[in-house]
Amino acid sequence: MQIIELKESILEDNAADAEVLRSELKAKKICLMNLMSSPGSGKTSLLLALYPYLKEEIRFGVMEADIDSDVDALTLQQAGIPAIQLHTGGMCHLDADMTRQGLRAFGREDLDLIVLENIGNLVCPAEFDTGAAVNLTILSVPEGDDKPAKYPLMYQECKILVVNKTDTLQAFSFDKERMERDVRALRPDMKIFYVSAKTGEGIRELAEELVREVREWTV
Amino acid sequence: MQIIELKESILEDNAADAEVLRSELKAKKICLMNLMSSPGSGKTSLLLALYPYLKEEIRFGVMEADIDSDVDALTLQQAGIPAIQLHTGGMCHLDADMTRQGLRAFGREDLDLIVLENIGNLVCPAEFDTGAAVNLTILSVPEGDDKPAKYPLMYQECKILVVNKTDTLQAFSFDKERMERDVRALRPDMKIFYVSAKTGEGIRELAEELVREVREWTV
Repeated sequence: MQIIELKESILEDNAADAEVLRSELKAKKICLMNLMSSPGSGKTSLLLALYPYLKEEIRFGVMEADIDSDVDALTLQQAGIPAIQLHTGGMCHLDADMTRQGLRAFGREDLDLIVLENIGNLVCPAEFDTGAAVNLTILSVPEGDDKPAKYPLMYQECKILVVNKTDTLQAFSFDKERMERDVRALRPDMKIFYVSAKTGEGIRELAEELVREVREWTV
Repeated sequence: MQIIELKESILEDNAADAEVLRSELKAKKICLMNLMSSPGSGKTSLLLALYPYLKEEIRFGVMEADIDSDVDALTLQQAGIPAIQLHTGGMCHLDADMTRQGLRAFGREDLDLIVLENIGNLVCPAEFDTGAAVNLTILSVPEGDDKPAKYPLMYQECKILVVNKTDTLQAFSFDKERMERDVRALRPDMKIFYVSAKTGEGIRELAEELVREVREWTV
């Protein structure tokens, strides 16, 4: 398993650099999605569950970013998903330049959709524009309904919220109405999907939405 | 509910500042514990579950740090626990100077144990010494057994690991042996406690350990 060690960006203006990268990707008809969440909310298993639906419609690959370990990229590759493992050298997030380093090492300009699986962290990744066309976040049921209230920037920066592990709704007290109210206060147009990567509930609908986003971007 | 807005430290040498704070707290016979974890692993509910045991033995209070919201400090106060709400102004961690600002605002030098409930984040808080006598971390079962492999620094920096939400072990695939093996590779002397803040399993044993740590520190 090849591991790409990313170098910390020396660029001062990440926002401007991210706009440049976004334009480059738009010209290449590649839709980059930045997937963010807490550790253990199910980013990798969600991508595995989406793959059978996505592959029928689009060419899909994953850049897996971690501080350490390469287990997730291996898991994705074994499932047939083009994937590359990026290491951030302890860094808590990716910026646009690090994302560009990853895209170059991946070298897959034939893909329609590349998902950047960001570092598991609800704080720092939301502060850095990666150049992605779409930001999305996962909230898993066991984490609790209070995360939007506690980590508001993450929800402001994303247009799609995936509520994962709905199969455990009975085991945890999770107030959907309270959560949705807090989310709408931060991002009125948030698209919210309830899914279980384990049982498959809601995965098809989410895959259809992602394909729609890719088609809009690559028109 | 009073909320203390912390200012970002301008000190260059956090490690030295943390040593100074630790010595000051030692002289005052206050044991500061730095509680770190992912968002939603159950930091606040663990403290609520520990309180009935702790209050029989020691004087206990909590500094609740969040980026936003004050729900956790309110919950603790309503349970009778001396608590103060700290806001980090978007910052992803606390350093020693921010911890000192919190302690001053709290003003509770009569306490034996003050728990700093750090920002929910497995990355950045582990990088900054807060001046605490003891670092501890929670891994909740739904997050998965792979967190030590993915976030090694957190496990290197802590001496106590609390595995929480053991009541959900049946619902999730969580390999205790794999997790413990990864933890021991990072921190051979880690003290590991399996608890459920919901059912009370293991809480008494953890409380006894915390009281032991406080007594050792305040001798």
